[in-house]
Amino acid sequence: MIRAAVLGGSGYTGGELLRLLATHPSVEVFYVTSREYAGAPIHFAHPNLRGYYRGLRFEKLSLDRALEADVVFSALPHGVGLETTAKLVESGVQVVDLSADYRLKNPSAYREWYGFEHPYPDLLARAVYGLPELHRDELRGAKLIASPGCNATAAILASAPLVKHGLLEDNRLIVDVKAGSSERGSKPSRSSHHPEREGAMRPYSPRGHRHAAEAEQELARLAGGEVRVSLIPHAVSSIRGVLASAHAWLREGATDMDVARAFSETYRGSRFIRIVAIGAQGTVDPKFVQGSNYADVGYAVEKRIGRVTGFAAIDNLVRGAAGQAIQAFNISRDLPEDAGLGYPPLHP
Amino acid sequence: MIRAAVLGGSGYTGGELLRLLATHPSVEVFYVTSREYAGAPIHFAHPNLRGYYRGLRFEKLSLDRALEADVVFSALPHGVGLETTAKLVESGVQVVDLSADYRLKNPSAYREWYGFEHPYPDLLARAVYGLPELHRDELRGAKLIASPGCNATAAILASAPLVKHGLLEDNRLIVDVKAGSSERGSKPSRSSHHPEREGAMRPYSPRGHRHAAEAEQELARLAGGEVRVSLIPHAVSSIRGVLASAHAWLREGATDMDVARAFSETYRGSRFIRIVAIGAQGTVDPKFVQGSNYADVGYAVEKRIGRVTGFAAIDNLVRGAAGQAIQAFNISRDLPEDAGLGYPPLHP
Amino acid sequence: MIRAAVLGGSGYTGGELLRLLATHPSVEVFYVTSREYAGAPIHFAHPNLRGYYRGLRFEKLSLDRALEADVVFSALPHGVGLETTAKLVESGVQVVDLSADYRLKNPSAYREWYGFEHPYPDLLARAVYGLPELHRDELRGAKLIASPGCNATAAILASAPLVKHGLLEDNRLIVDVKAGSSERGSKPSRSSHHPEREGAMRPYSPRGHRHAAEAEQELARLAGGEVRVSLIPHAVSSIRGVLASAHAWLREGATDMDVARAFSETYRGSRFIRIVAIGAQGTVDPKFVQGSNYADVGYAVEKRIGRVTGFAAIDNLVRGAAGQAIQAFNISRDLPEDAGLGYPPLHP
Amino acid sequence: MIRAAVLGGSGYTGGELLRLLATHPSVEVFYVTSREYAGAPIHFAHPNLRGYYRGLRFEKLSLDRALEADVVFSALPHGVGLETTAKLVESGVQVVDLSADYRLKNPSAYREWYGFEHPYPDLLARAVYGLPELHRDELRGAKLIASPGCNATAAILASAPLVKHGLLEDNRLIVDVKAGSSERGSKPSRSSHHPEREGAMRPYSPRGHRHAAEAEQELARLAGGEVRVSLIPHAVSSIRGVLASAHAWLREGATDMDVARAFSETYRGSRFIRIVAIGAQGTVDPKFVQGSNYADVGYAVEKRIGRVTGFAAIDNLVRGAAGQAIQAFNISRDLPEDAGLGYPPLHP
Repeated sequence: MIRAAVLGGSGYTGGELLRLLATHPSVEVFYVTSREYAGAPIHFAHPNLRGYYRGLRFEKLSLDRALEADVVFSALPHGVGLETTAKLVESGVQVVDLSADYRLKNPSAYREWYGFEHPYPDLLARAVYGLPELHRDELRGAKLIASPGCNATAAILASAPLVKHGLLEDNRLIVDVKAGSSERGSKPSRSSHHPEREGAMRPYSPRGHRHAAEAEQELARLAGGEVRVSLIPHAVSSIRGVLASAHAWLREGATDMDVARAFSETYRGSRFIRIVAIGAQGTVDPKFVQGSNYADVGYAVEKRIGRVTGFAAIDNLVRGAAGQAIQAFNISRDLPEDAGLGYPPLHP
Repeated sequence: MIRAAVLGGSGYTGGELLRLLATHPSVEVFYVTSREYAGAPIHFAHPNLRGYYRGLRFEKLSLDRALEADVVFSALPHGVGLETTAKLVESGVQVVDLSADYRLKNPSAYREWYGFEHPYPDLLARAVYGLPELHRDELRGAKLIASPGCNATAAILASAPLVKHGLLEDNRLIVDVKAGSSERGSKPSRSSHHPEREGAMRPYSPRGHRHAAEAEQELARLAGGEVRVSLIPHAVSSIRGVLASAHAWLREGATDMDVARAFSETYRGSRFIRIVAIGAQGTVDPKFVQGSNYADVGYAVEKRIGRVTGFAAIDNLVRGAAGQAIQAFNISRDLPEDAGLGYPPLHP
Repeated sequence: MIRAAVLGGSGYTGGELLRLLATHPSVEVFYVTSREYAGAPIHFAHPNLRGYYRGLRFEKLSLDRALEADVVFSALPHGVGLETTAKLVESGVQVVDLSADYRLKNPSAYREWYGFEHPYPDLLARAVYGLPELHRDELRGAKLIASPGCNATAAILASAPLVKHGLLEDNRLIVDVKAGSSERGSKPSRSSHHPEREGAMRPYSPRGHRHAAEAEQELARLAGGEVRVSLIPHAVSSIRGVLASAHAWLREGATDMDVARAFSETYRGSRFIRIVAIGAQGTVDPKFVQGSNYADVGYAVEKRIGRVTGFAAIDNLVRGAAGQAIQAFNISRDLPEDAGLGYPPLHP
Repeated sequence: MIRAAVLGGSGYTGGELLRLLATHPSVEVFYVTSREYAGAPIHFAHPNLRGYYRGLRFEKLSLDRALEADVVFSALPHGVGLETTAKLVESGVQVVDLSADYRLKNPSAYREWYGFEHPYPDLLARAVYGLPELHRDELRGAKLIASPGCNATAAILASAPLVKHGLLEDNRLIVDVKAGSSERGSKPSRSSHHPEREGAMRPYSPRGHRHAAEAEQELARLAGGEVRVSLIPHAVSSIRGVLASAHAWLREGATDMDVARAFSETYRGSRFIRIVAIGAQGTVDPKFVQGSNYADVGYAVEKRIGRVTGFAAIDNLVRGAAGQAIQAFNISRDLPEDAGLGYPPLHP
């Protein structure tokens, strides 16, 4: 068994890692940290897990304990685990970092989007961006996996085929994202208070969201040139789920069929991508991937005026966080890609 | 008292007309039609109205009865009341038609978007598009008011200032709309079944929505030239509410301040528009206009790449249907603009 | 105009008082307090009220300012305004106190249920319990009105007819209450965090809820003897609404008809009670009274085993708080009972 | 592999059977019926299952085809599959019948509660009521398993310990049930229409619900004498989940500790029951068992007046239908009790 530690285990991402790892055939979790819940059994933070992880309690974060791990899944907040990740990797422990700390290749992007000077530019270079459909080969044997953001995951999966196949008028996309409340984490606030959040439809970060940096980085690789992404998330009243609608203008002459081909070629053979022909018998909706690592993707062209939209629907806690991290980890270890992730989505 | 009839009174728009007219100081409803509920008291269809309209029952539609009215509010489905409206207007009865039947000026647009040949092109010319902020003067004394669609209302209010003030790179807008379930009416269907709809985030009409025709018509008037609108509604899990996010690229040199000025000039003195500075102390969300005729509007510029979004939030049943119809009617009769509409929105 | 102050104006009850008083024809609000929002305009706390109360800002609580009022609506938390209310009443200012501070007649009940010694037992005797259907006569001219709790209101309205008409086997009732999230106020917490609260069905205070004290007090008056009420609220995922299902065993020989008669006699002529015959054409559901001061009540008998349930559905913020307070105030001043409360409920 | 057929596979219960059986290590589904979807691939009815059951399509119901099965899971509506089940069992095929058709031992109960004369009283005698915690021994080798109703399951699990241990004043219970919308199946109707159902809190079957018959039957066995159960379900706005609050009066002298002991003794060693000490660190809520076969149970005593409530929370589609059916099937075949059911619940 591979011995795993989960850092930052009491939040929603941490809980989802524990939920999924509980049935992973090759992984045993021996260490889970939480500042707030240190000393408490796992089900105090995650009542769904009552009866699981019976021997385990949350502990304070200790580097020494983490060094006992074969792999560390770090779900610490952005910035908080930056140094821990570096030390672990340098000591030879594999880290799957679910924060934004190692996602961007360009150190200056941290200054621009996150407001700090990245102290480990060399590690940025070594980190693999953990979107399996784009980085499968690099993931094999990877020691540091930077697991993508949930909005970025959906934005990239919705638009990658369009950009990769050169179908846009110019490489500018407006990605309108709808997101459930669990995306903002487990900490209560005025805007997440149930009477305020339920029934809401409202933009947040309307002047630009940081996940655009990831999307621009990854799409530029595919396009072989600059891509501009405007990412505007909207809070809606689901709990789980992100839907990205990546809107753009088609280049002259590009057709419906070109778009169809771009999607099917880009995602051929992908274990966790399901392409949906949007119409009477199907649509793209995070409801249909709930609890699972699937991304449902689709597209629509408004011929009249040449508008194209790529859609991607994910469960933000699974494909947008814990599940994708485990998928990337599985690939890195040559385990079956769906180990711990084999369960079908829930519906309704 | 002005004697009013409500045609198609058992659906959600009809119910909302009855709810609002119940407290209108100058209007008395004497006749309400419904095929399905003919013979039944009003509260069989609208349990909230138990105790109101005690003497009244739903009746079958009869032109003779409708001709007794001073004003007819027609909430019949598209196409169904087309002829009735024409006959009433020709007989001198004022009609506020809440269907799409008289919204488009260009008869050929009915062929393109609705698939039929409009039989009364002359009436199209006489009808006034009932968006008060754009047609206040024409509404005075209007005999036929074509009340706008809910998505169109939000799309137009979100983008009118940008187009009117010439702030866009080209006059192409992508209007991503989020809509609550009541928008689709009171008739049950698989997609509106609670277990299927609650928690949903999914595009509908992803290849183009008919309300774009209204938006293009009205924005072209403001722009003095062609405007292209791609309107993509998304079902989300609220009951009431439409949020339009009208995305576009700013023209070179246009600034945040230009956008601010465009909004404040366009909506100066509008009784039912509230401009919200989006930020720590406010946002645009249909939750905040629930049950009322307000449209909350705002905007955001992503300077880095010149993207601008205009936002408009409405209650689809009030500002997107019954309330706007009454507002336009009030203006047509020189009544106080907010007669029957004075109640503040509900929150939370 | 009657000059009114609202103490504790930034919470949900305060917001609802302001929403309703905004259209009250005889009241003008000149003073609104909030510790948290002092200095801020009203719409910072209540975005629905943007455009209303333009001249007003939240202020700190000052007895001197409050003494300028003709009537003070106090929505301060339990215990916090106890002394302020006493001083205002002693200075001749009318107070409608929406907290629990003056609801119970028996001072020792405060020790038992709220854990403190009530410092103004004489005022308890003078206070009128503001449930208009039970205390209409005493309310006229009342100087201190203790506005009932939301769960208590629903529990009492659901069971009063059964108790008053002696229809129960013994005077023991189990009142199972379902409550929306706004009942717990505007302060965020783990249990009110949207991802935790949405979709919930869970008991709270399962060992007995304090509003039972009010219900027992009021029902005992009607029964002319002791009544035992077990009140068990359950959090469900609506925002607004309380449904009380008051379950009991019918006394030998009592019939369906007796129950029907008890309800119609108890509530005859009540402006804000609507009796619903539960069946194919109607049911009791807070959805149908949303935003209004109505209480919809009904009943059902399971003949097979003699179980009876009285149901009452209210909007917890209106009939369970602000609306009922205004209704009682209107009666106290001989104003029309529905002044400021005339708007029909919202649906859907 | 055990070859399984699913009759009535396009509804929610059928979909849940397919979802769970997809990962069952010993079962292979070879035949799925649906009248409405005959000829269509599985994901037309169950979009979550896109990519699963690739070779399979819905077929019309044919007894011959069903006879090829080792086990038939029948999710046909009440009455519809009654004869099919009888024929299959008589031909030696094991049937797990998820309808009410074989749940009641007493044929006359079908007359009383379901309004028909049961044609196979002998089969009623042979059928095993598939609640594993009460009938584990009889389930081994069972040829006909009558899988319990969802409300009945929750009602029985909530009250069995109280009745079995003789803790009630008299054996009368009032079981107030809160239920999500998926309980009513996948067929759209006015009351399940999203705008009508979301936010609802309303009783249905307020004069008595048929699942009471199952509860009375099973509790009487435990009590060794008659038990009276009044079951009153309430629609609330979740999708999945049933919470039963079984209210009763404690017998003189019974204490909190007696209740605690009754629960722990009754459910000792039960794989899928989790007893929750209700308080600061835990509560009973269907949210915490979502997607799983667990039943979370707990209790609360109001000492002041001797009221006791047993609570049980289940996912109505899993523990209340498909999961419990598979659990009972597993026991009948001496498979691991949790085969196909090992996945932890989802949260949030």
